[in-house]
Amino acid sequence: MNWTKNATRGEGRAVLVGSHSDTQTLGGWLDGTLGVAAGLELARAARESGGPRIAVVDFQDEEGRFGGLTGSTYLAGRIARADLDDRTDAEGHRFYDLRQRAASIAEYTEINPDRFSSFFELHIEQGPVLDSAGEGLGIVEAIAGVRMIQFDFEGVANHAGTTPMPFRRDAAQGMIAFATALNAAFEPVVHPETVWTLGRLAIAPNAPSIVPGTAQVTLQIRDPDKALLDSLADLADRVAAQAAASLGLTVDATQRLQLDPVPMASAPTRSLQAAAEMIAPGAWRRMPSGALHDAANVASLMPVGLLFVPSIKGISHNPREDTQRADLRRGLVTLAAAEVWGAMRKRNNL
Amino acid sequence: MNWTKNATRGEGRAVLVGSHSDTQTLGGWLDGTLGVAAGLELARAARESGGPRIAVVDFQDEEGRFGGLTGSTYLAGRIARADLDDRTDAEGHRFYDLRQRAASIAEYTEINPDRFSSFFELHIEQGPVLDSAGEGLGIVEAIAGVRMIQFDFEGVANHAGTTPMPFRRDAAQGMIAFATALNAAFEPVVHPETVWTLGRLAIAPNAPSIVPGTAQVTLQIRDPDKALLDSLADLADRVAAQAAASLGLTVDATQRLQLDPVPMASAPTRSLQAAAEMIAPGAWRRMPSGALHDAANVASLMPVGLLFVPSIKGISHNPREDTQRADLRRGLVTLAAAEVWGAMRKRNNL
Repeated sequence: MNWTKNATRGEGRAVLVGSHSDTQTLGGWLDGTLGVAAGLELARAARESGGPRIAVVDFQDEEGRFGGLTGSTYLAGRIARADLDDRTDAEGHRFYDLRQRAASIAEYTEINPDRFSSFFELHIEQGPVLDSAGEGLGIVEAIAGVRMIQFDFEGVANHAGTTPMPFRRDAAQGMIAFATALNAAFEPVVHPETVWTLGRLAIAPNAPSIVPGTAQVTLQIRDPDKALLDSLADLADRVAAQAAASLGLTVDATQRLQLDPVPMASAPTRSLQAAAEMIAPGAWRRMPSGALHDAANVASLMPVGLLFVPSIKGISHNPREDTQRADLRRGLVTLAAAEVWGAMRKRNNL
Repeated sequence: MNWTKNATRGEGRAVLVGSHSDTQTLGGWLDGTLGVAAGLELARAARESGGPRIAVVDFQDEEGRFGGLTGSTYLAGRIARADLDDRTDAEGHRFYDLRQRAASIAEYTEINPDRFSSFFELHIEQGPVLDSAGEGLGIVEAIAGVRMIQFDFEGVANHAGTTPMPFRRDAAQGMIAFATALNAAFEPVVHPETVWTLGRLAIAPNAPSIVPGTAQVTLQIRDPDKALLDSLADLADRVAAQAAASLGLTVDATQRLQLDPVPMASAPTRSLQAAAEMIAPGAWRRMPSGALHDAANVASLMPVGLLFVPSIKGISHNPREDTQRADLRRGLVTLAAAEVWGAMRKRNNL
């Protein structure tokens, strides 16, 4: 890569580039690492060719051993050091104890976010949209918000042979009626980018010969529009209450997660769009990110731009996760161009 | 109790009376034990007053530590001694090893079923039908057959944030579509005594942020009519295949249990009905048994009659399981009367 010669080294605030390098236990080679490698390559190229000052970040524990987006959550000041140290993983290991064994983080100094003018993250889409459309680049306009609600239906467990149908208060049937009614209620009001998932189910006593007495289901809704998210969560509550009442059951709804959508900043996003239109004219799109990214935390500190390249068949969190080499190169070049333009605009007060 | 004086002691075949005395870990005091206690009381009264010869049986392991209806299955010759000895419980204990520790069954001799003329079982209903109708006695005409089918839906697990709805192949949604369509398909064709239950569900990976890749659900259907059972099982297969196809999934159906209905014998059942009409005129009913009972196995050996008394609120397999004392007495007297009439009819070749 070759940068404009008028870039100034060692002065002013750096552009921060990066992502995370941890992945899922059975994950692939690009989720996270691509953005860190891109940052290192841009920093190397910038240093060699007099480009803008690039700082590279590798956020730790994006995937959630200690909570999810852990590194960027800490940078954003959303968790105190003592609270982070107190966190334990699924096996009960305390974060503080583990980091004592890693020389690089046994002691650490705070990083002042004011050192950075903006943050760019290059990431694989982890979904099928770009790949199936044959597009090479996605410029993220907002990271979708999340509502997660756990519904607990309660009826009466009973003998599956001796309890006639009219006498039953079957919690699993309540959950099924809810799920079916939810699809019917959501379909006319959602947007194309809205997704909803019943990803976790449990009934009890969960035996073939016993009418289920309780059923628990977790609904997750994601959308980049906060108002729509709120109204869908309310709608789900009403649908659950109706389904329960119609079968003589009770239902409790518990909010498990409420993350508002995070819009990306306009300046970096415009830079990315201009670069994309030059490098892949007509073969890129504006899109929301359905997945969370460290960019969502960094957005509270500085202007943030988030760039996607396609995932082949949308596969991620899987050893088969991959991206065409041409798409990887195109993503890197687009990121470089956007940063150059951003740096030029800043220097020239555009 | 007082028996007819012309009954002959010590001659001919005995009437067998009994049930089982094991119950569920958190069961009640009547499930099984009532029928054994009734047998003992009838045998005592018969011996004291010159009534018919009564033999009492206490079948072991009706509830299924080693398979379900274990004692009567063995009496009916449906399992060989060596196979029974080889069975293990959920903790891996072998039946043979355990019975070596119980003096009464360490060694045992076979009982020839030809020693008995007929079998009567008194049992609590374990359901709400008699109690809610205010009836004191139920004469079982058939023990319902059971079809148990496990349906395995397979789709593609995927990220719940990055996979737009049209791209999903969500196995849990397939299971939900199946369950809803099943209710709609069954309701117009079932009989009032038909019951069907989705008692066991499991989805994978069962995480709130992952579109489920597999879903397993176990359907149990019970009905006293074999032809209806067969046609409902076929209908369920077709409904599952349609639900899966409509969502781009595959589904496998596996037969887990297939027990045909067992009709009770006409002579003991007519005796029970005549006794019931005398003792509780207009306050008894003919009914199927939705639950399995040892009587189902014994029916392959000799004529069998099965008599129910009410369960308060239909509660069973629960420490709160109970029956009004008047109903317990009425059941015992009805059983005694039916046996007397059966014995008289036999002696007089009626």
